[in-house]
Amino acid sequence: MRRFFDPRQALHAPALELHNGGFAPYAETPARVDAILAAIGGTETPPDRGTAPILAVHTTDYVDFLQSAPARWMAAGRSGDAIPYAFPVVGRRAVPLDRIDAAMGRYSFDATTPITAKAWTSSYWSAQSALAATQAVLAGERAAFALCRPPGHHAGADYCGGYCHLNAAAIAAQAARDAGTARVAILDIDYHHGNGTQDIFQTRGDIFYASVHADPATDYPFYWGHADESGEGEGAGATLNLPLPHGATLTAFRGAQAVALDAIARFAPGLLIVSFGADTWRGDPISHFALETADYPVLARDIAARGWPTAILMEGGYAVGALGDNVAGFLGGF
Amino acid sequence: MRRFFDPRQALHAPALELHNGGFAPYAETPARVDAILAAIGGTETPPDRGTAPILAVHTTDYVDFLQSAPARWMAAGRSGDAIPYAFPVVGRRAVPLDRIDAAMGRYSFDATTPITAKAWTSSYWSAQSALAATQAVLAGERAAFALCRPPGHHAGADYCGGYCHLNAAAIAAQAARDAGTARVAILDIDYHHGNGTQDIFQTRGDIFYASVHADPATDYPFYWGHADESGEGEGAGATLNLPLPHGATLTAFRGAQAVALDAIARFAPGLLIVSFGADTWRGDPISHFALETADYPVLARDIAARGWPTAILMEGGYAVGALGDNVAGFLGGF
Repeated sequence: MRRFFDPRQALHAPALELHNGGFAPYAETPARVDAILAAIGGTETPPDRGTAPILAVHTTDYVDFLQSAPARWMAAGRSGDAIPYAFPVVGRRAVPLDRIDAAMGRYSFDATTPITAKAWTSSYWSAQSALAATQAVLAGERAAFALCRPPGHHAGADYCGGYCHLNAAAIAAQAARDAGTARVAILDIDYHHGNGTQDIFQTRGDIFYASVHADPATDYPFYWGHADESGEGEGAGATLNLPLPHGATLTAFRGAQAVALDAIARFAPGLLIVSFGADTWRGDPISHFALETADYPVLARDIAARGWPTAILMEGGYAVGALGDNVAGFLGGF
Repeated sequence: MRRFFDPRQALHAPALELHNGGFAPYAETPARVDAILAAIGGTETPPDRGTAPILAVHTTDYVDFLQSAPARWMAAGRSGDAIPYAFPVVGRRAVPLDRIDAAMGRYSFDATTPITAKAWTSSYWSAQSALAATQAVLAGERAAFALCRPPGHHAGADYCGGYCHLNAAAIAAQAARDAGTARVAILDIDYHHGNGTQDIFQTRGDIFYASVHADPATDYPFYWGHADESGEGEGAGATLNLPLPHGATLTAFRGAQAVALDAIARFAPGLLIVSFGADTWRGDPISHFALETADYPVLARDIAARGWPTAILMEGGYAVGALGDNVAGFLGGF
C-alpha cells in the first residue's frame, strides 16, 4: 500500500486549546505524526495539486481567511495562537444534548459570559428591577430608573452572551405591551449594539428598536447591528441601527440619537424604554467612544424633551471610577 | 425619579472571561453597582413579579438551562465558572467584519481550534497527501493511505473546528468525482462524528457519507451526528449516522460498521474513502470507546472484503504511545 505524508503537515503546533472552562495542552500534536511514521515506515511526499481541489470544497473567503488569520492576529497586537471567542449563532436545531458543554454552546453565542451559580439570581432580580421601573412609569411616573446589573441587551430569547443572561429591556417592553401599552419603543444608547433585543423583536411591528452604537465591523457583537438591518416581516422598518466609528464625540452621538428619536416620534410610542450604557464614556476600558461626563445630561435632556413616559434601564459601562457620575448625570438630565 | 435595584443583582461575580485569545478579568463586575449606588443615592427594591414576564420573552428551555447550568457544571467535575467552547453555528449572514476576532468566530464553530501561523501550510499538505492517495487508487492501486495530519473531517466548507481546517476527505471525494468517478462513498470511523464532511455533502446524492461514532448527545461535535440526520434534497438518504454509547467494544463497533458497509454496498461506489481515527482505542485520552489494538486489523479486513478501491485518510487518535501500532495494524488489515 502506498503511503503519503508531507513533513510540512507537522509545522502546525498550537500550545493550548480552550476546553471544559480552561486552557489545556493542545491534544492534536505533531507527535501523533512521529508515532505513526515510526510504526508504518517510509512515506512518499505528495505532489502539489494546488488550491483548485481545495476550492472545489471550501469557499474562497474561508481559504483566504485561513491564510491571513495569523498575520491579522499578530497585527491586532496579540501573542499566542489565534482563538475565537464570539460566534454568529443562529437557527439552531433542537437536539438532545446531555453534556453541559454542549448545552453551554447551545445557549450561548460567545465564550465570554460565564454562568456562575448566582447568574440566574442576579439576572432575575435585574429583570425585576426593570419591571418595577416600567410599572412605575405605566402608573404615572414621568420617568424611572432600574439599575439592571447584570445587563441584558445582548441576551436573545434562548441565548446568553455579552455579560447578559436575561434581556431586561425586552422583558420590560413585553410586560408593557401585555399591560395594554399598544406601542413601545426601545432606544439603545449603550456603546454596543443590543443584538438580543433586536433579535427578540425582529419580526414585531408593535415594538420599535433603535440603537446608536459602535460599528459592528470593528466592535462586538460583530454579526448584528449593521446599518442594513431594519426588521423582517411585520417588523419591517421597526429596527433602526445607527453605527458610529471609533472616537465619536457628543456631536456625532447626539446627532445619531436625534435621528433615532425622530424615527421613534414617527412610531408614536406610548412608552419609551432606554437601554442606557455609560461605556460610551471616553475612558471606558473596553470601548472606543469619546463622550465626556458632562455630555450625559445633554443626551438625557434631548430624550426627555420628546415627552414620552420613559423607563431607563442600566446596560454597560466598565470604567467603575467614573460610572457613578456618568449615570447620575444622565438621570439628572431628566 | 424612582430608582430600583435589588442587592441580589450583585451576587453574580465571574472571575474570568475569554477574550483576545486568553483569559482576562471579568469586566462586568459588581463594583459597577457600588459605583452607581454611591452616585445616585438610595434605591427601592423591586417587587417579585415571578417568571411569567421573563417567559413572555425567553424560552422555557433556556430559562431552565440558566438555572441548572452551574449545578451541571459542578456535576461534570469542573471548577471555576461555566464557560462554553463549542457552538452550533449555521446559516451565517455575510457581513463586513474588519476585526480578527469577528472573523475568527465567523469561520469557526468552536474555540478549540487555533489558527497558528503554520495551520494553512500543514493543512494544505495534509490535503495534498489525501489527494495523492486518492489519485494512486484511481490509477489502479487497491488501497492507499494518507497521513492526514492535521485531521479534516470537522471542517466545513467555510468553517474550522475540532483541530481541522481543511476537510481532506471531502477534498479527496470531490477530486475523485471531478476525475470521473460517478459515485464516491466515505466511511468515517473516527471516534467523533465528521460533521464537516456531512455538512459539505448534505444535499448531494453522488457522495454517500456513513459514520460510526460516539453519540453526540454526550460527545463532540454535539450538534451534528444524531441518528435522525440522513441528508437533504438530492442528498436525502445519502447520510447514515450510527452513534454508539461510551464503552463500545469491537462487537458493537464492528456491527455498526457492517451496517454502514451494507448501506455503502447498496450505493455501489466506484471509490471508498475511509476517514480513519484511532481515537476509538480504549486508552485514548479524550475519547471513551474500548477498542483494542488487535481490533483494528479486524475492522480493516471487514472493509477490504467489500472489494472497493479504497483511500484511507488519517483523522484523530491522541494516545500517541499506541497510535503507531493502531494505525499500522489497521493498514496491515488490508
